[in-house]
Amino acid sequence: MGMVYLCKLHCEKILDLMIHFDTDYLSGAHPKVLERLLVTNSDLTPGYGADAYTQRAKELIRSACGTPDARVYFLVGGTQTNATVIDGLLARHEGVLSAESGHINVHESGAIEAAGHKVLTLPTQDGKVTAESVQNYIRDFYADDTYEHMVAPGMLYISFPTEYGTLYSLEELEALSRVCREHGIPLFVDGARLGYGLAASNGTITLQDIARLCDVFYIGGTKNGALFGEAVVVTQPNLLKNFMPLIKQHGALLAKGRLLGAQFEALFTDDLYMEISREVVRKALCIKSLFVEKGFQVEVDSPTNQQFFRLPNAVIDRLLTEVSFEIWGPRGQEQSVVRFVTGWHTTDADVDRLAQILRMFTK
Amino acid sequence: MGMVYLCKLHCEKILDLMIHFDTDYLSGAHPKVLERLLVTNSDLTPGYGADAYTQRAKELIRSACGTPDARVYFLVGGTQTNATVIDGLLARHEGVLSAESGHINVHESGAIEAAGHKVLTLPTQDGKVTAESVQNYIRDFYADDTYEHMVAPGMLYISFPTEYGTLYSLEELEALSRVCREHGIPLFVDGARLGYGLAASNGTITLQDIARLCDVFYIGGTKNGALFGEAVVVTQPNLLKNFMPLIKQHGALLAKGRLLGAQFEALFTDDLYMEISREVVRKALCIKSLFVEKGFQVEVDSPTNQQFFRLPNAVIDRLLTEVSFEIWGPRGQEQSVVRFVTGWHTTDADVDRLAQILRMFTK
Amino acid sequence: MGMVYLCKLHCEKILDLMIHFDTDYLSGAHPKVLERLLVTNSDLTPGYGADAYTQRAKELIRSACGTPDARVYFLVGGTQTNATVIDGLLARHEGVLSAESGHINVHESGAIEAAGHKVLTLPTQDGKVTAESVQNYIRDFYADDTYEHMVAPGMLYISFPTEYGTLYSLEELEALSRVCREHGIPLFVDGARLGYGLAASNGTITLQDIARLCDVFYIGGTKNGALFGEAVVVTQPNLLKNFMPLIKQHGALLAKGRLLGAQFEALFTDDLYMEISREVVRKALCIKSLFVEKGFQVEVDSPTNQQFFRLPNAVIDRLLTEVSFEIWGPRGQEQSVVRFVTGWHTTDADVDRLAQILRMFTK
Amino acid sequence: MGMVYLCKLHCEKILDLMIHFDTDYLSGAHPKVLERLLVTNSDLTPGYGADAYTQRAKELIRSACGTPDARVYFLVGGTQTNATVIDGLLARHEGVLSAESGHINVHESGAIEAAGHKVLTLPTQDGKVTAESVQNYIRDFYADDTYEHMVAPGMLYISFPTEYGTLYSLEELEALSRVCREHGIPLFVDGARLGYGLAASNGTITLQDIARLCDVFYIGGTKNGALFGEAVVVTQPNLLKNFMPLIKQHGALLAKGRLLGAQFEALFTDDLYMEISREVVRKALCIKSLFVEKGFQVEVDSPTNQQFFRLPNAVIDRLLTEVSFEIWGPRGQEQSVVRFVTGWHTTDADVDRLAQILRMFTK
Repeated sequence: MGMVYLCKLHCEKILDLMIHFDTDYLSGAHPKVLERLLVTNSDLTPGYGADAYTQRAKELIRSACGTPDARVYFLVGGTQTNATVIDGLLARHEGVLSAESGHINVHESGAIEAAGHKVLTLPTQDGKVTAESVQNYIRDFYADDTYEHMVAPGMLYISFPTEYGTLYSLEELEALSRVCREHGIPLFVDGARLGYGLAASNGTITLQDIARLCDVFYIGGTKNGALFGEAVVVTQPNLLKNFMPLIKQHGALLAKGRLLGAQFEALFTDDLYMEISREVVRKALCIKSLFVEKGFQVEVDSPTNQQFFRLPNAVIDRLLTEVSFEIWGPRGQEQSVVRFVTGWHTTDADVDRLAQILRMFTK
Repeated sequence: MGMVYLCKLHCEKILDLMIHFDTDYLSGAHPKVLERLLVTNSDLTPGYGADAYTQRAKELIRSACGTPDARVYFLVGGTQTNATVIDGLLARHEGVLSAESGHINVHESGAIEAAGHKVLTLPTQDGKVTAESVQNYIRDFYADDTYEHMVAPGMLYISFPTEYGTLYSLEELEALSRVCREHGIPLFVDGARLGYGLAASNGTITLQDIARLCDVFYIGGTKNGALFGEAVVVTQPNLLKNFMPLIKQHGALLAKGRLLGAQFEALFTDDLYMEISREVVRKALCIKSLFVEKGFQVEVDSPTNQQFFRLPNAVIDRLLTEVSFEIWGPRGQEQSVVRFVTGWHTTDADVDRLAQILRMFTK
Repeated sequence: MGMVYLCKLHCEKILDLMIHFDTDYLSGAHPKVLERLLVTNSDLTPGYGADAYTQRAKELIRSACGTPDARVYFLVGGTQTNATVIDGLLARHEGVLSAESGHINVHESGAIEAAGHKVLTLPTQDGKVTAESVQNYIRDFYADDTYEHMVAPGMLYISFPTEYGTLYSLEELEALSRVCREHGIPLFVDGARLGYGLAASNGTITLQDIARLCDVFYIGGTKNGALFGEAVVVTQPNLLKNFMPLIKQHGALLAKGRLLGAQFEALFTDDLYMEISREVVRKALCIKSLFVEKGFQVEVDSPTNQQFFRLPNAVIDRLLTEVSFEIWGPRGQEQSVVRFVTGWHTTDADVDRLAQILRMFTK
Repeated sequence: MGMVYLCKLHCEKILDLMIHFDTDYLSGAHPKVLERLLVTNSDLTPGYGADAYTQRAKELIRSACGTPDARVYFLVGGTQTNATVIDGLLARHEGVLSAESGHINVHESGAIEAAGHKVLTLPTQDGKVTAESVQNYIRDFYADDTYEHMVAPGMLYISFPTEYGTLYSLEELEALSRVCREHGIPLFVDGARLGYGLAASNGTITLQDIARLCDVFYIGGTKNGALFGEAVVVTQPNLLKNFMPLIKQHGALLAKGRLLGAQFEALFTDDLYMEISREVVRKALCIKSLFVEKGFQVEVDSPTNQQFFRLPNAVIDRLLTEVSFEIWGPRGQEQSVVRFVTGWHTTDADVDRLAQILRMFTK
């Protein structure tokens, strides 16, 4: 049904001559996710996630994570999820360790602080933090006589992949997990783009690894084929008890919670979540190859769906007549860093068209 | 297209022998709203409400309100909207006046307080507050020598309709607006069920009246045919400046903001919002008549889509075998108050079936 | 030394013909407390309470409470102490149960809410709450299907004596303690005027009883002979861990913490705290007798240092020419409620003078 | 009177063979401040700063600042004052710009964040920020397309002197003031050690300059001869309106506010505040000379009462047998940075004794 209709829509879109690599939330939901919402639309269910779709989605996720006892919660968006989880994990006198470039430190309008918590920043080059820097921070903190006048590191926040598209290796994740557990602070992974990270790891890191090494993490839906939605997985029974009223308090409890359940049911049926992720990453790597082949400089060596290049401003200006993407800032007078992002909406035709356009540039 | 498909779904539903009057958010979106999401699903648009659907929806709402200069914002849910708006309207030392029964005081898990603000309660019988009680509160407050040790009334929150389904008359709204403006505090209307209030007023109160008398209000989508979404209308230019970062800070900024725009575009096209509202209210009044005819006691005389009856417990028990609805609490040993709610999903068949069931009761 | 000097000051004061019963914080410190500050003024000590006076004061308090393992903290004022303790005891989704008339609910400018917590009010006539009302609140709360949308009762706050000068009996305190412990919520006693409560109980309630029945309480200094200062006693080892950084975060950590230590050392040496309390209460009861003898109506039957009378407005006007006191509000057209408070500064001469003035009134 | 007594105390202290340069809040109040508290101790006054001493102190401060219309408020301590003022100056979506090393960012246990606000850090070497860095921060912020997802710079916080004892020149202050006023954000000066900064400027910066260039600042008492107390001066009429309830909400309103009034009355009578400051700075500079003469390395070139040296660890160990001071951290394996602080309690004998001790060191 919807397929014909959606095809018609897509044809209209083609008339829009621009191709778009701005973000991974440029379009609606993946057809299979949308279909699930259609199919269930008229069903009458209780609100707030007490419906059968949500229960099934939780089961599917627990199963995919290999954690039959984990608790799963569905929230609407990433900033909301970060603020609610972090608020639930921290005591009043504690703050959250994060890379300086962490989303919570830069792009959430102070949501963490609005809930009363300081973001304790760790220096970073590529969006990642090291177990050593976490270890040192905690050690130095408690070695300071005045530590009771300072904000105690109460948890670690990392993003996987990071804001720069980079990935932690399994060894790095294990080291972070170890240092957190040694010091009794939870490790929380912002997985707004988790699927892309897992897909990019080429099987070296699995969802089960994430579930095993992290205490709380979320599986991003918004940027991965859903209309919206993030699935929070709590693997430690003693964390985030009484999380439901906190979700409500943060305005994050969707009345028609079934919409989240239904979407994640679709995403975790027949491996759709990873299938989308792999395909989106594949296209991103194609784009990376295109730029590399033309001799352009890769700014950050990202294996995921966000690619950063350092381009001459003249090239950027010409590209912008046919392609949209984000400009992240100047590098000297002549060059700037740009970001190209693929999403489930990105087609092979989009990539081909970009190849065509780039071919016109002489290096 | 979707229609045939949705009909099939509905047929399946009929096999569920229960009829449901629990809430007005039992199902997904009204078919026309859903269709709009379908039609736009593959479009590529910028995020966070910077898309054309959202712009059009804002225009349609401004036009329906008769306020060409009002600012319109779309948020996801009611608690979120209340918390964000109230946080934006109050200074740190101020609290929000509300009926004791106000949703913000009872059913939002302390979201207002979590943002640092006290709810200052006014007594109520039927969910409404009077201009006189507001006037007296403010007068007594500033007459108290110790008022700087107390929380200043910084705004008034009312719900229209109230949590008991009751309505303010135009005169009552005008009096509340007057007392607020005299004292320089904003009047904020929680319109989670605004359409039902307007529909029930039989034309005595219009959306334009609301826009004229209130400083900020919202038009509820979640309970009125949308998947989710509340449209905040700010009619005073000096209020809620810098509201976007506050929405983000509250985790209330939807990445795919277009979903809100598209839904409200549909709701405010061809009068769909009021058409749904009128139909839903009509069915609620049918149900009220059914109970009244059978001689059951109306607990609150509500003209809107929430109906409250006082029923013998034996009746409740028998009803519950075929009908679902909420039980609000006991009235003595033998009776309890129940709530019946209609929504866009309620069919004439549902009402007929209820009539049939009630007919079996002898008074 | 200081005595002669202070006498001189007092003589000057007598020239002020008015007598003052406004509050119990009208003057500086009791001479013995002041002397301790004088004696220690030039000593050099570490800051923030890490000095020997503070350690000694803690020992004296632990000993007076009969709780050798209790932790003791010194803060500056009552509102600060309430806000810091309550913030430390509650989880984010919890609120604090309190009588409607509780200081935290009325006269702290929303300090509790500013830290993110709702005050959950219990009705009261005389400033007290009953174990039954607490029990019912908790039972009804968890019986409500929607309790995850509401603020959970996370602790009980009571004041002893209450804001109306009334006292809980030992049986009442035991019942409150029992219901709190049954439900696993801490009982916190605001003891801003604790000494007066203990003195007024005529030995039926001791400091040891308070320490045994409450989980956290404070011994008020500000209103009981100190320049300022409240001693928080934590009898449960698992509560308020990491309280020092929270005190700092609340701006409640005095740099020269020794000032608090020295004052409480004085107050808990040779039973000074209770000696002051008994004397102040004795004078308050004298005043009560004076009014009763003249046939004036007692508004609240208070056994402590705050006395409330209902007086004809004409009487009030005449009194105000020679006596200062607080007017708490009208009772009809002809009468008002007034509050008379005694403090360590109140002299027998003050009371005699009041007797003289009252004698001039014909009933 | 007190003088003889205090001398006796001082004699006792001399028996303590150690000399102490740990902080500037090692002792009680300057004798003249203490005497003022003694003299007024028995007076009966209204609470919360509504007494005559407080009014007089405000007048004296306004007069010293040359700002007859400024509003003056008295709070108890520095962290409290920073948290309350910053909370009052910022809108909810705004943060406070501060040097990375700012007290609010490092040593206030997250008090700013607990009130909901992010500290936006500027890099610094010596505790100072430059007008250029402020200008760039603001320019870059609004140049960023995503600025509504970030925390807006809503004010500038600087400390004078800084946490490293360094000073802004008049030109630097003027430049900071200019950039703040151009961008409409208030400039707030943490003057916990303001007197020492003014004294150290040798007349190039006056209290009037501070009052002219800053929008809000405070005059520190705690570290400058008072038992406690900070005098907040608000020079802009439109800022911090309704500051009293905010002070109360932050638990910062002292019941016996007269204690603050009386102390600042003393400090601002006969130039006592500056007299103390000059003397304390003079002694600090003596100490600096002693170390320089011995060839030790000055770590930060501070003209104020905090002096930082880089000493061999062996030297530190020997010094610590007779002198107490703070160790700020290692510089390599062999050396550490130490801080020596003078206060009103520091005597010439203390400095002479230090000279004597240092003389025993061969370079």
